[in-house]
This record gives sequence, C-alpha cells and structure tokens, in this order.
Amino acid sequence: MDCNQIAIVGLGLIGGSVLKALQGFHNAEFFGIDMDADVLEAARQAGLLSKKRLNQEEILAQADVTFICLPPDSAIEFINGHTFKKGSLVTDVCGVKKRIVAGIENKEIDFIGGHPMAGKEESGFFASDGDLFKGASYLITPTPENMPEHVALLKEMIAYMGCRKAVVTTPEEHDDMIAYTSQLMHVVAVVLCDSERLAKASDFSAGSLRDCTRVAKLDSRLWSRLFLQNKEALLDCICEFEGSLSLLKAFLETESEEELEGFLRRCSDRKRQFFKEK
Amino acid sequence: MDCNQIAIVGLGLIGGSVLKALQGFHNAEFFGIDMDADVLEAARQAGLLSKKRLNQEEILAQADVTFICLPPDSAIEFINGHTFKKGSLVTDVCGVKKRIVAGIENKEIDFIGGHPMAGKEESGFFASDGDLFKGASYLITPTPENMPEHVALLKEMIAYMGCRKAVVTTPEEHDDMIAYTSQLMHVVAVVLCDSERLAKASDFSAGSLRDCTRVAKLDSRLWSRLFLQNKEALLDCICEFEGSLSLLKAFLETESEEELEGFLRRCSDRKRQFFKEK
Repeated sequence: MDCNQIAIVGLGLIGGSVLKALQGFHNAEFFGIDMDADVLEAARQAGLLSKKRLNQEEILAQADVTFICLPPDSAIEFINGHTFKKGSLVTDVCGVKKRIVAGIENKEIDFIGGHPMAGKEESGFFASDGDLFKGASYLITPTPENMPEHVALLKEMIAYMGCRKAVVTTPEEHDDMIAYTSQLMHVVAVVLCDSERLAKASDFSAGSLRDCTRVAKLDSRLWSRLFLQNKEALLDCICEFEGSLSLLKAFLETESEEELEGFLRRCSDRKRQFFKEK
Repeated sequence: MDCNQIAIVGLGLIGGSVLKALQGFHNAEFFGIDMDADVLEAARQAGLLSKKRLNQEEILAQADVTFICLPPDSAIEFINGHTFKKGSLVTDVCGVKKRIVAGIENKEIDFIGGHPMAGKEESGFFASDGDLFKGASYLITPTPENMPEHVALLKEMIAYMGCRKAVVTTPEEHDDMIAYTSQLMHVVAVVLCDSERLAKASDFSAGSLRDCTRVAKLDSRLWSRLFLQNKEALLDCICEFEGSLSLLKAFLETESEEELEGFLRRCSDRKRQFFKEK
C-alpha cells in the first residue's frame, strides 16, 4: 500500500504527537495543516514536516494517509467539506465514534475511525510528544467496506507509534466502553473538585486526592462536547455509579459493618482481578 | 528531651516505615512490638532493632517515645491497657483522630495524635519503606496539655523522616478534612470498580481509569472501620459529592451545553488553583 505522503490535520497535542511518533515511517513525507501559522512553522523548524510548501488543497489531494486530529464536530465538517486523494485512507482520533462514523458523508475516501487511548493534562502542539503513545491501546473501528490493505496499514502505523495494541471494535462498543473508562472518570474527577474543602486540602492529602482528581484539569469546551455527544452511554454509567454509591452510603448510615466490608472487598477484588496495570 | 529509646508497636506498613525512617535519630535504640514473631525477627536481622532482648513490659517501661502503629480500636485498647514510661511521649498514626483522642484514658503518658499522609496499596512490614514519608504532610493534634518539648520532639522526628511538613490541626478539623481528601477518594475509587464494564476495560483505557481507581485495592476491613469511625463527616462529603454529580447529570440530560461547560470550567479551575502538586 502506498504511503509516500502523510498529512496531519490539526497539530495539537494528539496531532503533534502522531506527527512526531510517525517520523521515519515508510520514509514518507509529512505535511501539516493547522490554523496557527506559528505551530506549522515550529513543526517545520523542528524538521518534522516536508520542506515542500504545498497549500491545503495540494496536501489533501496528494496524501495517501490523512490523520484528522480535530474535535469531533470540526472533524466531521472538515472531512465532508474537503477533497482528498481518491480512495485514500483518512482516519480520525476523536473520543467518540458513533457520531463520527455516522457523520462521514464523503464517499471518495476510505475512512477508518480511530482513537488512541493516550493523552495528558496539557494541550497544544508544544505539549505534544513522540512517546505519548508508548504502551497505549489504540482503538479502531474498521468496517467490511474498508480496504483490508488500509486496515493493515493503519495497524502498522499504530505499532510504529509504540502502541501496545491495536484494538478492533465497533463504534457502539467503543462509545459504551469509553463512557466508563474515560468519560465517567473525568466526570468523577471534576465533581470531586466541586468542594470548598479543596482549598485547604494540600496539607491534608496524600496520593489519593491527587490521583483521583488528576484529570480534572481538563479542556472544558472539548469535554462538555464529548460528554454530550455520548450522552446516553455516559448517563447510563453515571446512574450505575450513583446506584453503587447509594448502596455504600446506606451501609454507612445504618452502620452495617459487615455489608460495608463485603462491598469494599468485592470492589477491591474486582480491581485486582480485572484491571492489571500494563 | 530524652530520646534514648524508641518503641514501635505494630510493625506493619506504617510502623515498619517509621522504624526504617527514624534509624539514626538521636542515636536512639529501637524496640519493636508485634504479634508476628517472624516480622520481629526480620526487623532484628535487618539491624533495625536493638540487640537487647527485652519483653513487652520492659520495652514500654523504658521507651521515651512510643509509636502506636495499630488500627484505631486496637490502638486505643493498647494504650489504655498498658503501662508506659511515666510522662513519656506516646503517639499514634491512625487515619481518624477524634475517636482516638477522646478514647485515650491513660493519664500517665503524654499522648499526641498523629497521622502521616502517606501509604501505598501493599500492606505489612515487608512492604514498609524508609522513604515512604518523603515529601509527605504529617498531621498532628497537640493540645495545651502536651509538654511543648514533646511537641517539638515529634516535629523533629517528622522532619527527620523526610516529611515535607508537620501540620498542626485539631482532631475535629483532621477528621473533617480527611473525610474529603482520603476517605471520599477511597469511596469513589471503590464505587467506580463496581461495574461490569471493568472486566473488559483494559483494552479501552488510558490513564484516567488507572488513576481514579488506584486506591480501590484497599484493605476492606481497615477501611470499613475507618469509614464508620468518621461516619458523619464522610456522609457529609458523600452528600456534597452526590449533589454536584446530580447537577452535572441534569446539565447532560437537558443538553445544557453552556451550563455543562461552565461547571467543568469552574471545577477544573479550582483544581488548578487550589491543588498544586507538591
């Protein structure tokens, strides 16, 4: 499968990290598209981009692979509103998949949804890091309509970026699981910070407050949209969480020590059993 | 202030770590009391304890400082049920303070409540670590009845163990803050694990699930007791958390994007403002 030219649209934290992590892949030339000229210039100065000065239309018309590293709505709009190399592989990195996959109306491209399970609290190109994907899981949602060669190429790039695993899933399963593994965690981290006690917590805290609230330093615009775009699955996770919390609270209120201990043991056993650190 | 002999009662994770971290302090001799003879022998073999073989009564009768590193109820029982060197400094390391301070009936000793804000998921002497307290905050609850020299000595030991800060507080403030900074975090971490989705989460997760649930691998017996012994303050924190979660959920249900984004921004700003990593 040809992979001579790779375009990255949106050189933020993820786009910049993809660009850095893919350097050297198939000796391809890299092209960047970003609204911020300073970012493009910095990427060029760092030797991450081709020296050829192509305009946006030329880049998209020539790229064998295009990574769309924009927020969900912008990603859909960009893909439907531009002309890409016919039949080329276009992939995104958005945290929701049903909405993206359903929203793509551009029939000239071979689109495969993707979502690298990596990130950090900082954002933007200057926080990007070629090691960001090391050991991460990278979710992809290919369909029978995709060219098998493109699926294989995407998997090859994922491995090249240092990911632990390319996980094939459906947009539905992706969104259902992400509602739990990522969105609910961000919800909880944020809600934990909605307390007056936080202001004097530093002196009174060890690692648990730090770790449970680490991801609360989020991009509120991006995450409010991600939450709304996966509303049903996230509400389902929140309701399940509320139910379990009510149960624990009832054991505490009624001082049911045995039930409380049993609840804690069951949950901590689940944690030990099912979530082994990678 | 004399500090020739230091006794540690309970050589578990915290007691063992105190023993290791205090080595060399004032050239004192260290004595250990533990139900597990293997643990005592291991500590002796490691050169952490005096070579003198004293029995429990002799140890307590001679120690200038005694650290009680037992769970809350056992700590109260031990302190009230034993004879210590008259007027000597006795301190504990329990995660609740009102109950402990109120429960001490031994009038022969100079008791100061303490709580190092450090821990890890493993427990027991063999998980103990002389570096456990490095950079940690160490809470103490002295009263006007305590000898100022003992308060100063305890602070000196805390600094010697590598703690960032000895924080003087009251049992009431301690329990109210700990309900939030530690207990609520453990509650949330545990409740997050009470989901069928956890079983297949590894492939679908990045750092947020790992960090938010890190402390869920807890000692269910110890923590159910700690929760019950601080029931009122913890219930207050849980209710506050539930209220904030309901608010976020309502914004999501009604698709109030602006309010949702505002809520996320307010919380993430609080996190940035009030909780600077140490």
